[in-house]
Amino acid sequence: MGRFQFSDTVFSGEVYDDSVYPDPIYQRLDDVYPLSSLVILPPVRPSKIVCAGLNYVDHAQELNMELPKDPVLFLKPPSAALPHEGLIRYPPISGQVDHEAELGVVIGKTCRNVSEDDAFDYILGYTCFNDVTARDLQRTDGQWTRAKGFDTFAPFGPFVVTPEELAHQKLSSDRLSISCHVTRGGNKEVRQKASTADLIFDIPELIAFISSVMTLENGDVIATGTPPGVGELIVGDVVEVEIEGIGVLRNKVVSG
Amino acid sequence: MGRFQFSDTVFSGEVYDDSVYPDPIYQRLDDVYPLSSLVILPPVRPSKIVCAGLNYVDHAQELNMELPKDPVLFLKPPSAALPHEGLIRYPPISGQVDHEAELGVVIGKTCRNVSEDDAFDYILGYTCFNDVTARDLQRTDGQWTRAKGFDTFAPFGPFVVTPEELAHQKLSSDRLSISCHVTRGGNKEVRQKASTADLIFDIPELIAFISSVMTLENGDVIATGTPPGVGELIVGDVVEVEIEGIGVLRNKVVSG
Repeated sequence: MGRFQFSDTVFSGEVYDDSVYPDPIYQRLDDVYPLSSLVILPPVRPSKIVCAGLNYVDHAQELNMELPKDPVLFLKPPSAALPHEGLIRYPPISGQVDHEAELGVVIGKTCRNVSEDDAFDYILGYTCFNDVTARDLQRTDGQWTRAKGFDTFAPFGPFVVTPEELAHQKLSSDRLSISCHVTRGGNKEVRQKASTADLIFDIPELIAFISSVMTLENGDVIATGTPPGVGELIVGDVVEVEIEGIGVLRNKVVSG
Repeated sequence: MGRFQFSDTVFSGEVYDDSVYPDPIYQRLDDVYPLSSLVILPPVRPSKIVCAGLNYVDHAQELNMELPKDPVLFLKPPSAALPHEGLIRYPPISGQVDHEAELGVVIGKTCRNVSEDDAFDYILGYTCFNDVTARDLQRTDGQWTRAKGFDTFAPFGPFVVTPEELAHQKLSSDRLSISCHVTRGGNKEVRQKASTADLIFDIPELIAFISSVMTLENGDVIATGTPPGVGELIVGDVVEVEIEGIGVLRNKVVSG
């Protein structure tokens, strides 16, 4: 599913191939729209975006950070949300902005203190997430909120793929290939390539841990951490997060 | 102004002495309610709660932390919001939960890249805020999100006092006395006592800095940092944050 805009109307709908079928509650809308006629919005409106840091062994090593015993949590503000094809604004105050390709987990209903066994009951689906980070500010600030909290620094989408849709493709969220490509000056380069099988804390562990701290709400997004290979973006770059069975999230970088 | 619940109805209204006057949009409601007949809710529903760490010189020193050149920002999730008289739940995983009395600034309209000169144009008003913190987890986690993000760890209220209402009392937000009292076993003790005049980064500086990073929305709350004297809470304590001209925010601590 996704969220879309058609002239002044915002609606949710299901996506099949290149067609969008508005959810039945939008009675004034047509039955189907060509995807190309719509503006794609972030697929949900999270009350919070909870991120796990250092959740692939090799990424923690490349940043010279110790492996955590518990997931390292941080928040990105909802104001940072950006849809597929939205423009990442490079903040003038930073000299190093990095991509971080991640699997995003979208929560489907309010939950608190969820056990690992029950975690999948609370998942609406999965999406591509780019934890855009001003790496220089991350290093100097101590707290990561500013470095990761700029407007446009939380691209996610294009859509949410449900567990059933994944299963239909004979895929499972615990072993999806995830990659990041950057296109610069016409050259497309692989920057990150990994599998969600290499997560230190897997999806049920993350949901159990986070929900033991804070109530999760319908539409909240959990960004599960990035694999090794994070790298710099410059103005003009096009960055793509691709996850097997989920889709491709594409965003261009412009000056802030 | 505040937010209230009366049987199944939630509404905003103005508070005068012990009476609440629902905002005119709630046409089905009576003209006035005794405050004692209503449940007090958090006075606004923030899309985000942005906090400034280490914003009084002496508090930074008591934690042995360096003084920041820029405000240190962190976020508390909206799920942590707690109203006046709400119960702070002590998480079983923590062995040290502290109070931090703070002046809360409530944003009145969407803004981005606000100058210090214009900052007051975007303030709806002020409220009492308690940045409840699991100090042991803050020390071990590195990132402060978990330590400060538990459900019930963001009490604020009881109401929002506008700049005009402050001025009517011949008070100004840049020199308000702020204190924290803890009542334990019948004994009420002063824990924190300071003036907002001692903020390292004042309110216009905070709004300018934060809005240069992230768009602020109507109802967002900025917690401006805590003065020295933070101290431990135990189950059964009643903690009060009192700010001159703003009110008293009272919360009891219960086991999580």
